[in-house]
Amino acid sequence: MTQIGTLYGIGVGPGDPELLTLKAARIIEATPVITVPVAQEDGESHALNVVESMLKPDQRVLKLHFPMVRDIAEREAKRQAATQTIVEELQVGRDVAFLTEGDPMFHSTFGYVLNLLPEGLSVEVIPGVSSIMAAAADIKTPLVNAGQRLAVIPAVFENVDELHHIFAEFDTVVLMKVYRVLDRVLDLLDELGLIDQAVIVERASHAEGRVIKDVQSVQDDDVHYMSLMIVHTK
Amino acid sequence: MTQIGTLYGIGVGPGDPELLTLKAARIIEATPVITVPVAQEDGESHALNVVESMLKPDQRVLKLHFPMVRDIAEREAKRQAATQTIVEELQVGRDVAFLTEGDPMFHSTFGYVLNLLPEGLSVEVIPGVSSIMAAAADIKTPLVNAGQRLAVIPAVFENVDELHHIFAEFDTVVLMKVYRVLDRVLDLLDELGLIDQAVIVERASHAEGRVIKDVQSVQDDDVHYMSLMIVHTK
Repeated sequence: MTQIGTLYGIGVGPGDPELLTLKAARIIEATPVITVPVAQEDGESHALNVVESMLKPDQRVLKLHFPMVRDIAEREAKRQAATQTIVEELQVGRDVAFLTEGDPMFHSTFGYVLNLLPEGLSVEVIPGVSSIMAAAADIKTPLVNAGQRLAVIPAVFENVDELHHIFAEFDTVVLMKVYRVLDRVLDLLDELGLIDQAVIVERASHAEGRVIKDVQSVQDDDVHYMSLMIVHTK
Repeated sequence: MTQIGTLYGIGVGPGDPELLTLKAARIIEATPVITVPVAQEDGESHALNVVESMLKPDQRVLKLHFPMVRDIAEREAKRQAATQTIVEELQVGRDVAFLTEGDPMFHSTFGYVLNLLPEGLSVEVIPGVSSIMAAAADIKTPLVNAGQRLAVIPAVFENVDELHHIFAEFDTVVLMKVYRVLDRVLDLLDELGLIDQAVIVERASHAEGRVIKDVQSVQDDDVHYMSLMIVHTK
């Protein structure tokens, strides 16, 4: 009887390959099948770029297609197919690593895989350094001190009014993927008198990353899609 | 002229020594002076325990006293003294590592040091895996999926009413150091119908860590002080 393989959901950190954990490095080196989510069929994977120099020729790399399309049925079908690919490898006894940038439990594709995985399989989750911590390190300013409150909000604002009291009640507000609604966010910060307490960090920890302290100076189309905004409200 | 040393604020991760990053490991091994914050004079340091096996006899370890006392003047004086100790090492040209559990920019003593440090010194911040990500990995449940909102709140509730709408507006609420007000939190969760969606994680990633799914079964004094609660509100 074949022993079923283990699925490792691994966070490879925010982008700097040195921000991989010792545990992630050990498991990635020892796992025969490396899978990464890609938004375009056979497209680029940032997570793969992070670990590429560690991989050996006998390791198999599978790019799993998780399209970011509006059609729910199509999205769901692709997630099912990707999960099925993983399950087939596990069932023939091979361990599989699923790599995600940052942390696998934080805004990550691995959540969808976990959700669709049949019961009874062996799964391990290896946490990673997330982009919010890496961004705070880049600006050398604490995200929150002891006793302070943090809100992390994806920048999809159906209701800007709701954000007013979030800014009032939290010491620090992080807006993820802020490039999508930057104009509206800048207007709101201006209205709340918080525009000087906001910083944008593009591609935290990357060699080509950028810290933008004068947030008013930037335009939507000038900001990288891997960007977040940290606002210290106090 | 002596070249001034560099201060490294380093997150050693949540407790599992393998969750150290490659970068943290490299810098810790190469830095002559290792400093750690301790709550009691010469007391235990969890961060030091994490890296202890990596240290060599020629590295100096300094325990810096950051007492958790109510007297603000005393607390401030001790923070000043600790920072001064670091500055003196830097000024004679030695690099200094300041180790913190988890991430140095997230509820960490390193924030106080950064705040008190004279201008013009060379500082680098090395992010680490935080306890919230490690806790989510332990329970193998995403903290937040894409598009979801996260609130991280220290469990010091002056105003329980405020928490009602935080639970209503956020997909996931993490309560840090929850042992301090566990009874009140359990009452609130019960009232909100969320008690079955709450999990307590003690000492995330530690070999002696514990996941408590039946949160109603525990008492305040039965929960480790390094514990947090994750509540999925949806």
